[in-house]
Amino acid sequence: MSEFEEKTLKKDIIYDGKIIEVQHLEVQTPDEKIAHREIVKHRGAVCILPVTAEGNIILVRQYRKAIEEDLWEIPAGKIEEGEKDLALVACRELEEEIQCKGILEQIMSFYPSPGFSNELLTFFIATHLEQVEHPRPRDEDEFLEVRCFTMDEIETLFKNKVLDAKTMIALQYYKLQMRK
Amino acid sequence: MSEFEEKTLKKDIIYDGKIIEVQHLEVQTPDEKIAHREIVKHRGAVCILPVTAEGNIILVRQYRKAIEEDLWEIPAGKIEEGEKDLALVACRELEEEIQCKGILEQIMSFYPSPGFSNELLTFFIATHLEQVEHPRPRDEDEFLEVRCFTMDEIETLFKNKVLDAKTMIALQYYKLQMRK
Repeated sequence: MSEFEEKTLKKDIIYDGKIIEVQHLEVQTPDEKIAHREIVKHRGAVCILPVTAEGNIILVRQYRKAIEEDLWEIPAGKIEEGEKDLALVACRELEEEIQCKGILEQIMSFYPSPGFSNELLTFFIATHLEQVEHPRPRDEDEFLEVRCFTMDEIETLFKNKVLDAKTMIALQYYKLQMRK
Repeated sequence: MSEFEEKTLKKDIIYDGKIIEVQHLEVQTPDEKIAHREIVKHRGAVCILPVTAEGNIILVRQYRKAIEEDLWEIPAGKIEEGEKDLALVACRELEEEIQCKGILEQIMSFYPSPGFSNELLTFFIATHLEQVEHPRPRDEDEFLEVRCFTMDEIETLFKNKVLDAKTMIALQYYKLQMRK
């Protein structure tokens, strides 16, 4: 237990959506005062760095309504209710988004925004990629461009751009591994 | 303009909180169907990797109510309404959280969770650190432990742990720079 723990005194569910649940909490701080916390609950997601035999990287470009622009990202997808096997989730997303299967290695997990959200992202690397003949379809409301890049092309693409955090973590991880 | 752009047809503000605003959007997808988006608006934040003259790193440990546990993170803080100069925000957070001032270099910006939030994080490195004699106080409801680590100590501390994304990005970036 942490000496900084905040005890929940009161919890209001503000919004129970399809992807997020929003809570307003009244908590007791370590010095026994009252404070308020706004929390976004999320089921978590997986993300996958697909590396080809040549050491190139497959990225997807999609429109992100939250920021009203396109981002180049590594493939990723939300965990559905009840899903426990994250490698299976990663397989599905790889097939849906880039029509590939491969050998998956689970690398690590991280919290993108622990200041307000419990979202947990688990990061895989996929190698030995093969095209899937009859891939399962994407989500109905999902549109994306798939492209294969060399690491040099990615450096150029991302120069002075605002990036997606999981993609940055995956690419930096890969670069650190390559240099070992 | 993106060919994947989603036009907003209807916007409902679900919650207008202190830190987040939650919106439910009805959008038109590129194939002219209707889809729904749950969006968390956030004013954005800065984060700072404080590097000592010896090449050590200062981290802070704090309780994160969203995940109900403590995390070791680099210093960070939200942008307040109307604040435009991110270097000033970074200075304030450095002083409040670790009682230091230093020379700040702006490195890059990233989206921690573009799938549902517009939060933008801008990352600085602080060097030439000096203790501030009479630092401004922390937020009333903010409790944290400050500690200086060697990179080896950080490797041990973080081994097999679930980490905070911004801290991971900052540390990977620093390692890649060191190896150049």
